[in-house]
Amino acid sequence: MRKRLCITPLFALALSACSLISVQEEPRGTGDLGVVIERAAGNVLIVEHTNNQAIARVEGLGDLSHASVVFSRDERYAYVFGRDGGLTKVDLLKQRIDKRIIQGGNSIGGAISQDGRLIAVGNYEPGGVKIFTADTLELVADIPATALADGSKNSRVVGMVDAPGQKFLVSLFDTGEIWIIDFSDSAADAPTVSRFTDIGKQPYDSMLTPEGRYYIAGLFGEDGLAMLDLWNPEQGVTRILDGYGKGNVPLPVYKMPHLEGWTVADNQAFVPGVGHHQVLVIDTQTWQQSKAIEMVGQPVFVMARPDARQIWVNFAYPDNQYVQVIDSQTKEVIKTIEPGPGVLHMEFTPRGEHIWISVRDRNEVQVWDTQTLEHLYTLEADNPSGIFFTNRAHRIGL
Amino acid sequence: MRKRLCITPLFALALSACSLISVQEEPRGTGDLGVVIERAAGNVLIVEHTNNQAIARVEGLGDLSHASVVFSRDERYAYVFGRDGGLTKVDLLKQRIDKRIIQGGNSIGGAISQDGRLIAVGNYEPGGVKIFTADTLELVADIPATALADGSKNSRVVGMVDAPGQKFLVSLFDTGEIWIIDFSDSAADAPTVSRFTDIGKQPYDSMLTPEGRYYIAGLFGEDGLAMLDLWNPEQGVTRILDGYGKGNVPLPVYKMPHLEGWTVADNQAFVPGVGHHQVLVIDTQTWQQSKAIEMVGQPVFVMARPDARQIWVNFAYPDNQYVQVIDSQTKEVIKTIEPGPGVLHMEFTPRGEHIWISVRDRNEVQVWDTQTLEHLYTLEADNPSGIFFTNRAHRIGL
Repeated sequence: MRKRLCITPLFALALSACSLISVQEEPRGTGDLGVVIERAAGNVLIVEHTNNQAIARVEGLGDLSHASVVFSRDERYAYVFGRDGGLTKVDLLKQRIDKRIIQGGNSIGGAISQDGRLIAVGNYEPGGVKIFTADTLELVADIPATALADGSKNSRVVGMVDAPGQKFLVSLFDTGEIWIIDFSDSAADAPTVSRFTDIGKQPYDSMLTPEGRYYIAGLFGEDGLAMLDLWNPEQGVTRILDGYGKGNVPLPVYKMPHLEGWTVADNQAFVPGVGHHQVLVIDTQTWQQSKAIEMVGQPVFVMARPDARQIWVNFAYPDNQYVQVIDSQTKEVIKTIEPGPGVLHMEFTPRGEHIWISVRDRNEVQVWDTQTLEHLYTLEADNPSGIFFTNRAHRIGL
Repeated sequence: MRKRLCITPLFALALSACSLISVQEEPRGTGDLGVVIERAAGNVLIVEHTNNQAIARVEGLGDLSHASVVFSRDERYAYVFGRDGGLTKVDLLKQRIDKRIIQGGNSIGGAISQDGRLIAVGNYEPGGVKIFTADTLELVADIPATALADGSKNSRVVGMVDAPGQKFLVSLFDTGEIWIIDFSDSAADAPTVSRFTDIGKQPYDSMLTPEGRYYIAGLFGEDGLAMLDLWNPEQGVTRILDGYGKGNVPLPVYKMPHLEGWTVADNQAFVPGVGHHQVLVIDTQTWQQSKAIEMVGQPVFVMARPDARQIWVNFAYPDNQYVQVIDSQTKEVIKTIEPGPGVLHMEFTPRGEHIWISVRDRNEVQVWDTQTLEHLYTLEADNPSGIFFTNRAHRIGL
């Protein structure tokens, strides 16, 4: 399941040998580690961003298209959610699979609880939410989604995030609901589930603002967005940005932009336009659009550098060879770069001096300097897609 | 230099034995580690917040009154800045001092660069800034502060923080300056230093807003605060909050509140009043005061929970047995707790479910639940003061 890479002199020196069975003898910190999804092969590459290198490859994770990752609170373990319903706990220090289960038939993502003790997965098939212990991946709760009116099946579950107070939030695609699943009463046998219904047609993805206050779901079946203020849930779900979602032509759901790509900087949300070659700027005090920035393609991920001064944007096919950088103060594109065909994901180092970019069709992960906007390093990877660094362990709403 | 504590069954089981020379055989992540300063004894206690326990004690760090700590980007090493000019690099995994130097005569704090490769220290005596490699603590640059008009000595340096773009910021107490020390040109022999003069009388401490944009210095010699917008440094240093600093009677400098204690939540800065039993609320769009909240004593640290929903406040003697919690939405005190005499510092777990409180005169560090506001655990510590968790490695401006 594990293959050590012998590609970097620095790393080879630090180890006694580059063998399959030895683990690192010198202890190492885990704050600068991460994983890169090798989507086609079903592998994850363990990487570190101090010396910008791959450390090891872990194989056998199944179907990793659309895979997402969360990390344990000690930043030692990565939990990888696969499209095939696989949930794999990877030990970044021993560089191997610690545990792997098939928890459902078709899953779209998961989350880790605020205290790090629970892993939650939202499933398409069978529709519902499953909760596991982070330690051993034992089932803690199995919450079926609402049945469809015709009784044929339960709703698909999307948009899973964690929220403060030992909560998880999800959206129900087929029945138009948002749920708060609350594990804060540790004496109870089961979580409390608060259901908000009639929130809009076909919520397909969602995001939580960085501080954990607003849960926002995108709607595939109609325009606008559904928003729940977690500080004031008694006010219910409200509709914002009524025009949002209007494209020239309706998009298939797989072409809809990720809401995870939403980003908030300086009271402005920078949002991918749907079906337009635009990034929209939204005032988060009023939730009204204040500007549209013309881009080179249909945005997919719109991500703020940790200091919020730059916004980096990648694009859907046929413009997915480009990345554009917006100055968040002037709201103008300051640079267009061309890392190569198939830019699928980007991840900033924790304090933002570099950004890592996966370039699938070149089998590369590229490291760029965010101040000079120059390409610094290249790592080889097999059709890389998502890039995830361990500092996500400390963040809310992922 | 190292003494392992044999106090917790969980930890003892995970180790082969509780001996002085063994190090952990099972690798461990470093994302849930931290240090507690044992001020009087000159020790640091290594702690972990997954199981709420002390792991080891490292001795021999000299004078730790007013000590501060930053962490390496991999979260393995703690750099401890002592009042006696000592700079000590502590290996949290091997639980021992990795390197220790006396870098100056009297230092007030330091910072680690955005890329993690440089450690900077601001010194009172001799007045100036010294920069070291994070790896080996070798001197990289020695920048004397501006000489006093009478030529007797150089200005004391205070308010050291890191900022995006490989910068450090400091304030010069005696000559009324703010400096930007810029290491972003790695080809240059020395950093570029931008000096802002006449910024106000006797800046004594400073803070950087969480995204890294505004550097704000408190003035001991006059009212108001000096602010530098790092996005627009050409606009120079401006004065904000003209009335700030007015107390009923002038305070000695050691009684002035920490500006590190400033906190920004939901476009509101919550700020300790100087010489008043108040927390002031400042609108960060206009930098005007919008409210004053009456408190039980003179606030020292005013800290937002990571989700910004609560503000926790501790107090100067004779009210330092209390902690008060403010709801950041209603701006009202929702609870007053009494951890015990000598509450010196507080630190939230990275995602905010718990807060750790040092209670010096009880020789305790207490862990409180931030949702139920109940006391959960107690760790023994010798006159504890500062508490620092490794997730600070990933944050800007500390």
